[in-house]
Amino acid sequence: MRVAELSRRAGVSVASIKYYLREGLLAPGERTGPNQASYDEGHVRRLRLVRALIDVGGLSVASTREVLRAVDDDEVRLHDVLGVAQVAVTAVPAPTDDHATARAETLVDALVTRRGWRVGPSNPGRRAAVEILATCDRLGAHDLLNGLDAYAHAIEELARTEVDTVVDRGDRESTVEGAVVGMVLGSSLISALRAMAQEAAGARRLDECAPLDGADAAEGARQR
Amino acid sequence: MRVAELSRRAGVSVASIKYYLREGLLAPGERTGPNQASYDEGHVRRLRLVRALIDVGGLSVASTREVLRAVDDDEVRLHDVLGVAQVAVTAVPAPTDDHATARAETLVDALVTRRGWRVGPSNPGRRAAVEILATCDRLGAHDLLNGLDAYAHAIEELARTEVDTVVDRGDRESTVEGAVVGMVLGSSLISALRAMAQEAAGARRLDECAPLDGADAAEGARQR
Repeated sequence: MRVAELSRRAGVSVASIKYYLREGLLAPGERTGPNQASYDEGHVRRLRLVRALIDVGGLSVASTREVLRAVDDDEVRLHDVLGVAQVAVTAVPAPTDDHATARAETLVDALVTRRGWRVGPSNPGRRAAVEILATCDRLGAHDLLNGLDAYAHAIEELARTEVDTVVDRGDRESTVEGAVVGMVLGSSLISALRAMAQEAAGARRLDECAPLDGADAAEGARQR
Repeated sequence: MRVAELSRRAGVSVASIKYYLREGLLAPGERTGPNQASYDEGHVRRLRLVRALIDVGGLSVASTREVLRAVDDDEVRLHDVLGVAQVAVTAVPAPTDDHATARAETLVDALVTRRGWRVGPSNPGRRAAVEILATCDRLGAHDLLNGLDAYAHAIEELARTEVDTVVDRGDRESTVEGAVVGMVLGSSLISALRAMAQEAAGARRLDECAPLDGADAAEGARQR
């Protein structure tokens, strides 16, 4: 198909397609003339994947390129492709070298031991967790530090389910693609569900607390 | 204190301080001369908060400005400040109007009913969840769709803990600040712990599967 049809099929503008071609996110079509190329179903599918990773997963163009390179390289095992996707979805803040960082490192090491997690020192989440907890320490925000185990418990359950549902789809390409989509979009889904669950938990809590509050308190008192 | 000392105390360059002043993230100091101003402890504290939200929480300058405006406005209740912070940490992909979106809306509505969540239609997570699930549907990635309840269950538990640990610190300003830090940095912490827990779950799974794989399978067969 021509680029106009590719654009229509994938729901991506011709300008974006040209940009992705220049950035190496999409393989060139088969040349059919001096200014023409022909594209196939593989291009439609790849374009949809690119848009999902960038628009819905929030990946940068550079991260998307890294992830797709790993997806396309038959020599890279599923486990390592997922490692690349993990780096892409986990922002690691610049490290600061102070007492708060040293304390946070001890906290994270203790957490890893307590939960029996086998996690290497280069895991992006491990480095990020140290910086996040050190920042809380510097701000005097100890709620997150105190809640660390509750977070770890809920996330551990989730991660186990996520890893277990990597489905063997028969061929390497679609298995790896599915796993990457799960990893990247799963991260966005967690954010989305958290915003919903927080509103719901907040509404429930407001209900419980309302009779102690202003006009409602007076109403509550009158009913007693 | 002068700007040089403010810079040293907060660990933020003078150039960044001037940028934040221009962008309205930091209140101007007290003018002490034609080219001089004096800053106080409130500025140190605010700068640390700005850096935490931007560098560790990943907020944009514009989102940070919105959040700080709500924090600083005494008329805005805690519940509504958290709403603003929630919008800041939840990316909502551009909506697409097709069959996949309609199906995803039904899925999300059913999830909300099933879990008994009270969540308004404008909740950013609700709109994001619809787009994420619609994208999975379009890509034929049904793992996330199937795992939706497992995600919701784990996140619900987490959100309840998060909402319950909003600590009353005595005055509105520090209570609200603490809650915002928890909301924004909590989001980064979830990502970080997920990367660790996934590596740990993956390592455990590789162990379990190893004897069925290649050379190890031969070894396993010999031992039987």
